[in-house]
Parts: sequence; C-alpha cells; structure tokens
Amino acid sequence: MQIEAKLEALGLVLPEPLKTPSGLQLPFPWVRVRGNRAYISGHGPQNADGSLAGPLGKVGAEVSVDEAYQSARLVALGILGNLKRAIGDLDRVTAWLRVHGMVNSAPGFNRQPAVINGFSELIIELYGVEIGQHARSAVGMAELPFGIPVEIEAEVEISE
Amino acid sequence: MQIEAKLEALGLVLPEPLKTPSGLQLPFPWVRVRGNRAYISGHGPQNADGSLAGPLGKVGAEVSVDEAYQSARLVALGILGNLKRAIGDLDRVTAWLRVHGMVNSAPGFNRQPAVINGFSELIIELYGVEIGQHARSAVGMAELPFGIPVEIEAEVEISE
Amino acid sequence: MQIEAKLEALGLVLPEPLKTPSGLQLPFPWVRVRGNRAYISGHGPQNADGSLAGPLGKVGAEVSVDEAYQSARLVALGILGNLKRAIGDLDRVTAWLRVHGMVNSAPGFNRQPAVINGFSELIIELYGVEIGQHARSAVGMAELPFGIPVEIEAEVEISE
Repeated sequence: MQIEAKLEALGLVLPEPLKTPSGLQLPFPWVRVRGNRAYISGHGPQNADGSLAGPLGKVGAEVSVDEAYQSARLVALGILGNLKRAIGDLDRVTAWLRVHGMVNSAPGFNRQPAVINGFSELIIELYGVEIGQHARSAVGMAELPFGIPVEIEAEVEISE
Repeated sequence: MQIEAKLEALGLVLPEPLKTPSGLQLPFPWVRVRGNRAYISGHGPQNADGSLAGPLGKVGAEVSVDEAYQSARLVALGILGNLKRAIGDLDRVTAWLRVHGMVNSAPGFNRQPAVINGFSELIIELYGVEIGQHARSAVGMAELPFGIPVEIEAEVEISE
Repeated sequence: MQIEAKLEALGLVLPEPLKTPSGLQLPFPWVRVRGNRAYISGHGPQNADGSLAGPLGKVGAEVSVDEAYQSARLVALGILGNLKRAIGDLDRVTAWLRVHGMVNSAPGFNRQPAVINGFSELIIELYGVEIGQHARSAVGMAELPFGIPVEIEAEVEISE
C-alpha cells in the first residue's frame, strides 16, 4: 500500500464517490477494468464528500490558471478514489499510459498545459517517473458538463 | 446473432455506409481491427440510407437536448453497422471499453452527458451491463465536421 | 530502415525535439512505450529546428485550410521524430491504430477532416494502407496551447 501511504504523508484524502448533480443518470462506470487495462472515464474536480468542487466556469475568465491547476489536482484524487474502488489497491497500477486533459477555455486562453500539470505532477509525485509517466494532451474545450473547469480521461496498465 | 435479433426486436435498422458529403476524401477506415481490439473512428449520426442525419447545428441553440439524444442513438446504430462490416458478427464484441462523446455545444450548454446517454443506453440495452459498460467522456466541442451535433469515437474488445 | 528511406526520397526531414516556448515545464514524455504499444502525446506543428511552426491561430480565420493541412503534415513529421527517438527505428511500427485530430476552429469552421488529411495521407504514403490505416476523429477545439492550429494524439502497435 505504498501509494496510499504517500497520499497520507502528503495529507491528501481520496474523495467519496461523485454525488451526481440533480438526478442526472450516468449509465456508465467511472473505471472500466478489462484484463490488464483500466479505462478511466472523464472526471471533474470533486470535494472530499463527493460533491463537485468549485470554482466552476471557464479558465481564463471566471477561473484563474492557479485555481484550475488545483482543480486538476482534485481530478487526480477523484480518479485515484474511483481507481481504488475498481481495482482494490492503487499499487496494482503498473504504468500510466494515456491522459487526455480537457480545459474549459475562455476565448484566447491557451495555457492548457499549465493547468493539466496539476494532474500530471501529482501522479508522478505519487508513482514516480517510471510508472507515473504518461502520454498527454492538454486542450481547450468549448464547454464541459456542469461548467467544470477541467475534465480528464485516462488509461492505465494494471497487474492482473 | 443475438445482437442483431435484439436490434430487429426493437425495430432498429443498421444504416448503409456513410455517403460522404460533396466528394470529401476520407483516407481512413471507420473501424480499425487489430488483434482483440477494434478502434472506432469518430462517427456522426446517419440515416438508414447512409446520408448524414439532421438536425445539424449546435446543441443548446439549433438542436435541442432531446433531438441530440436521438442523434447519439443514431451514432450508435451507425457504429454498429460499420462494426458489423468490419468484424462480421456483432456478437464478437466481448467488451465495450472506451467511449469519447463529443457534443457540438452552443455557448453555455453544459448538459453533454444527457446527450451522450442516447448512445450509452442503447449499447447497454443491446449488450447488457457486463459487456456493454464503458468508460466514458461527454464533452463540448467548438465545432464538428459538417455541423453534426454529435460525434463519438470508441474502442471495443473482440474475440479473435 | 524503409520508412526513413522513404522520408529521404520525399525530401522530408524529421524535426529536432520541441523547443518548449518560454520555460513551460512539460512533465510527460512525447511518447509512452509499453509492451507492444506506443502512446503518442498531443503534438503541434514544428519546424525542423524544433521551434513551433506557424501560422498560429484559428483555422477558418487567421489560418486557411491549405495552411492547416500543411501544419497537420508537420505534426506527422514531429510525431515520427519523437517516435524514432522513443523506439529507435520507425520500421518497428506494425500498425497505426488510433488518431485523434484536433483543429483550433474559428466559429462556423467545419472542414476539420480536410485539415487532418494532411496527417493521414502522409502516414499512409509512408507506411502503406495495411500498416498505416488508422481509426480517426477530426474535431473542432475552442482553443489549443500557444494558439497552434492543429494538435494530434495517437496510438500505434510496435514490435517488441
């Protein structure tokens, strides 16, 4: 349980499952496990109690780069929470593979990489470069569900 | 041929191959099969005859959520049509893995999940939860080809 | 070294590694290799010396379709350059699998496929249809990092 020990040492808490806003049905799992792969659905930022974490809105307008960096860090914690529920032990991740980082972008905002670094840097801090490194895109979306500033989907390799 | 029997029982028809608008060259296959994976190109909504299905435009402006839900359902049928042509039998799909749902979004529209549910709910109705469940993102694009309201790409596991 | 011979015959040069603009930290590799897969990060267009290649801006406004087609072709060369550094020999690619083509789109611009063809056509010219064909999406983003007109991420199968 090395990853969980590192989280505790950093004072970080994995959030509860997402409390879906206003009765929306989400007919899919947060993590799809199959063989040695876990496919991770698009996640937004969550508070520890599972509610959506603000601020909401477009990065470069209502949300600053620093705030969005923190949002991306919260996305990482939410993904780790659902990954733990799906595969039992976060140490089973043998390689982060692909991260697609989507930033709700105000017109003219083009610092998406600085935002998604909030995710990548935490994953590498926890897993180390060898396991934690991942191919990545960081791009600007027109809109995201509920007005969240950041949404991230990913794929990881796991031990069977 | 259980999936095709279910489609028939539901009165659903798989469309003909896409009639590409106005001579555009598309130098790629709709489905790329390799080993036990089928990678599915971004599909828009099609009519039974293979033409693009309207309404076109941005969801939240020219296209309503209910109309876009139906468009996402048509995208599922188009994908199943191309998947059948690529792998011969839809029952060869052993697991839906990843679905990336892209919604052509008007400013301020953030109900992308309600739109992409038109795809997810049909896939789960046809394949059941065990095989049909998939990691999913539903996000808002600035523009989509030809002004289609929804485009979906996916990855599935198939028996070899 | 068949692919490199073809590149040379076409007079094409693989660019140097990206010179990241203005000190931005990018805590991820351009290519993540694992088993028989290489996951390719989102790449923008590069000049031969590794600097970002213009024109920058939105396709359909500051950047024409023909210019963006050339940008997508430059993205292909940049990806091949990083792929070569990651796997040693471009002939190790046994199948292109998935290409996600993102176009920085001005309002109303919906010819994304014509832009991403600049990537797909070069890959198929180099690798042939059997290896080079790929599932593809070509979609319109609100913004891209540094104002690049095109960004492409991909996944390929490689021999181990």
